[in-house]
Amino acid sequence: MEVINIGIIGFGTVGAGTIEILLKNRELINSRIGCKLHLKKVADIDLERPRPIEIHSSLLTKDAWELINDPDIHIVAELIGGTDHAKEYILGAISEGKHVVTANKALLAEYGKEIFELAQLKGVSIGFEASVAGGIPIIKALKEGICSNQIRSIRGILNGTSNYILSRMTDDGISYEKAVNEAIRLGYAEDPPTLDVDGTDAAHKLAILTSLAFGIPMPFKAIYREGISKITEDDIRYAGEFGYRIKLLAISKIIDNKIQARVHPCMIPKDHIMAKVDGAFNAIYLEGDFLGPNLYWGMGAGARPTGSAVVADIINISRIIRSGTNSFLPPLAHFRPFIEDIRIQDMDELQSVYYFRFSVIDKPGVLSKISGILGSHGISIHSVIQKGRRFGGSVPVVMLTHEAKERDIKEALSEIDTLDVLTDPTVMIRVEEG
Amino acid sequence: MEVINIGIIGFGTVGAGTIEILLKNRELINSRIGCKLHLKKVADIDLERPRPIEIHSSLLTKDAWELINDPDIHIVAELIGGTDHAKEYILGAISEGKHVVTANKALLAEYGKEIFELAQLKGVSIGFEASVAGGIPIIKALKEGICSNQIRSIRGILNGTSNYILSRMTDDGISYEKAVNEAIRLGYAEDPPTLDVDGTDAAHKLAILTSLAFGIPMPFKAIYREGISKITEDDIRYAGEFGYRIKLLAISKIIDNKIQARVHPCMIPKDHIMAKVDGAFNAIYLEGDFLGPNLYWGMGAGARPTGSAVVADIINISRIIRSGTNSFLPPLAHFRPFIEDIRIQDMDELQSVYYFRFSVIDKPGVLSKISGILGSHGISIHSVIQKGRRFGGSVPVVMLTHEAKERDIKEALSEIDTLDVLTDPTVMIRVEEG
Repeated sequence: MEVINIGIIGFGTVGAGTIEILLKNRELINSRIGCKLHLKKVADIDLERPRPIEIHSSLLTKDAWELINDPDIHIVAELIGGTDHAKEYILGAISEGKHVVTANKALLAEYGKEIFELAQLKGVSIGFEASVAGGIPIIKALKEGICSNQIRSIRGILNGTSNYILSRMTDDGISYEKAVNEAIRLGYAEDPPTLDVDGTDAAHKLAILTSLAFGIPMPFKAIYREGISKITEDDIRYAGEFGYRIKLLAISKIIDNKIQARVHPCMIPKDHIMAKVDGAFNAIYLEGDFLGPNLYWGMGAGARPTGSAVVADIINISRIIRSGTNSFLPPLAHFRPFIEDIRIQDMDELQSVYYFRFSVIDKPGVLSKISGILGSHGISIHSVIQKGRRFGGSVPVVMLTHEAKERDIKEALSEIDTLDVLTDPTVMIRVEEG
Repeated sequence: MEVINIGIIGFGTVGAGTIEILLKNRELINSRIGCKLHLKKVADIDLERPRPIEIHSSLLTKDAWELINDPDIHIVAELIGGTDHAKEYILGAISEGKHVVTANKALLAEYGKEIFELAQLKGVSIGFEASVAGGIPIIKALKEGICSNQIRSIRGILNGTSNYILSRMTDDGISYEKAVNEAIRLGYAEDPPTLDVDGTDAAHKLAILTSLAFGIPMPFKAIYREGISKITEDDIRYAGEFGYRIKLLAISKIIDNKIQARVHPCMIPKDHIMAKVDGAFNAIYLEGDFLGPNLYWGMGAGARPTGSAVVADIINISRIIRSGTNSFLPPLAHFRPFIEDIRIQDMDELQSVYYFRFSVIDKPGVLSKISGILGSHGISIHSVIQKGRRFGGSVPVVMLTHEAKERDIKEALSEIDTLDVLTDPTVMIRVEEG
C-alpha cells in the first residue's frame, strides 16, 4: 500500500476542521500511518459558500455518490450529520467495502445496530471517535485502553452547551434565560438550543458509550431524559448550601444485570472531580472493576477538537489497511458480548438520594404534612432548609432525602402536589453521591 | 488462531493483580479478543511466598527462560521490575519472536531505544501501558487516541506518593516528615521513598511520554530533576496566598524545535484542573495543536490498576495476533518521526515565573538590596509578601517574579545568597501558569 485515499462528505464546520488538520499535519500523519494519506474528494451540496480553508476546486463535487462509488477511495468520512442522507451514504459506502468514519451521534444512537451489523458483515472498520465528546478519545479508551475491565458505571458531562449554562448560573448567579442567550451569542449553542438543553444530545452520546461498555447496541429510546430548563438560581443556591453543584449528567450503570441509563440534572458533591468540570468542557468519569475511577476531560465540540477525532480515526483505520489485515475489531470491540441482550432497568426502580424544593404557604403544620406523606411512602428525610419568610406569600422548603426508590418518590410527590398548602409544583432533582 | 498463550515473569504485586484479572474477567477478555487467552506459565524466583491469589502449581516455574523458550507462548509479560534481569528477559523474549508486555518504566526510560529497535526488527509488539500512570490509558491515547495532533505540551502528576504527601501538607497543614511517615504506613510509599520524592520515578515516566509524543526515544538522563523534600508548610501557605497550589509536575514542551523536559515542584493556579488532582491520584494534562487541552485522571499505582493496564495490552496484542497481521505499529507509533533527533533545551534557557522565599534579618534596606540584585539581572518583581516580624530574628520575604530566564535567576540567587542579611539559602519554586 503506497497511498491511502480518503473522501469526505460534508464541508461544513467539522469537515473544514478535518481538512485543515489533514493539510497542516500532513507529515506527522504520514509518519503516524507509515504511508501516504491522500485527500481525493470532498462532497458538499453547497460549493459556493465561503469557508475558513481553501482546497482546489478539482477536489470538490456536489455528488456524494461520486466518491462512494470511486473504487480508489479506501475511507469515506461522513460529516454532514442528520439521519437521512447520512445513513444512505454510510450504508452505501460500507456496501462498497469502504471503511467509514463518522461524527454522527444521532445516527449511531438511533441506527447503530444496522450500521454496525453491515460493517461487520462487509469486514470494514467504522470509526466514530468524533461522535462523543469531540477531542476526548473516550471511544478508543473504552474499546482498547481499558478493555480488561468490566465497566461498572459511566457518568458523563457530554453536552458543553448545558454545562456552560449551568456553570454561568452557578459561578455568576445569572438566570437560565440570560445564560442561554449568552451561549447563543458566543456560538456555544444553536438558537434555540433545544436538543442541547433537553438532554437529547447527551442521550445520543450516552447510547454510544453504553453500547461500547457492554458490547451490544443500547436502544436510544430507552434512555430516560430530562433537561435543564427548569433549573433555577434558587436550586443552584440550595444545592450549594447542601454541598453540591448541579450538572447535567448522562449516567449508565450496571445493576443486578440490568442497565440503568438516564440523562437529567443532578447534584454532585462539590469536591468530586466532576463538579470541577466547568464551562463548555466535557468529561467522562467511569469506573472499571479493576482500574477504579478514571476521568477524561477536554473540549467536546468545535471544528478543531471534532476534526482531531475524525483524523485520529482516519489514521487508525489507515494503519489497519496498511498492515494488510481487514478490520481487526468489530465496531463495538466485543466478539461475543458477555451479556446477550441489554435489559434496561425501569426508571421506577432507580434508587437515589433526592432533593426537593417545595413552594408552600408559610403556616404551621406544613412541614409535618409533607414529611408525613413522605414517611408513608417509606421516604426518610436527611436534612431540611427552611428559611425564607414572606408575609402571606409562598416560601420554599428544601429537603434532601436518604436513599429512596423513584417509584415511591413519584407517588409521594403526586400526593404532596395536591395539598392546598402547595403554591407551585414541587421541584425534584436527583443526587449522585459519586 | 484458536488459543493465544501467555507467560508471566514476576508473581509479585503487579503479577498477582494481572493474574487475578485474567482469571476473573476471562469471559469478557475472550470476547474482547475473539479467541481464547490461556495463561500457560508463571515464573518467579520465590514460589513459597503466600500470595493473594492462588494458581495451580503446575503453572509455576522458577526459571523465566522456560517460558521465553517455549515455542507455544505468544506473549510474555515482564513484571519483575528493575533493569538487570528484566532487560535480559525482554530482549530474550523479543529475540524469540514473542510479543512483550511490561510495566517497567525504569527499564524503558533507560534502555527503551535498544528494546524498541529490537522489537521493530523482529516485528513484534511491545506493550507498556502499565509503565506510566497505572490505570490511566495514556499510552494508548498518545499512540492512537489523539495521534492526529502535534503535542505541544505534557504536564503530568505522575507520582502518587509525592502527590499524596503534598496534598496532605496542603489540605491538612501537616509537615513533610509527618506526611511521608503516613504515606509509608498506608503503603503508598516505600521506606525510604527516595525515587518517589526525588523526582526519579516521575522522570522515568516523563521520558516514556515524551518519546511517544515525538516518536523518538527521549534520553532519560537529559531530564532535569528536583524533588519535593525541601517544600515546607510555609511555602505551601504562601503559594495559597498568591493563588497557587504546589504539585510535583513532570513537564515536557516543544519550544523552538527544542524539547524542554523537567520534573520539579511547581506552583499552579488553584483553579486549574490539575490543582484539583489530590491524594494518591495521577493525572496527565496535555495540549494538542487541534484538540486543545486534554486531561486524563485515575489511579497511578497498585496491583489492580496496574494489572488492568497489563491485561489491556495483552488483549490488544492478542487482537493483532488474531487478525493475522504482525505488529501493525512500531513501538512509538511513528514510522518516520518528523523530528530526527531530540534536541533538549538547556535548563538555563527556561523561561518561567519564579517564587522566592528569602530568609532575612529584619532591618531596613533589605528588600531594596534584594530587588536591586534581581533588577540588575533583568528580573522584575510581580508581587511581594512581607509580614512576619520577629524581634532580632529572621523573617521571610516572599516574592513572585514576572517571567524570567532560569540562567538569570540562578545568577541572581547565588549573588543574593552571599548577602550578610540572608540567614538561610533562598527557596525557589517555579510557577506554571497553565
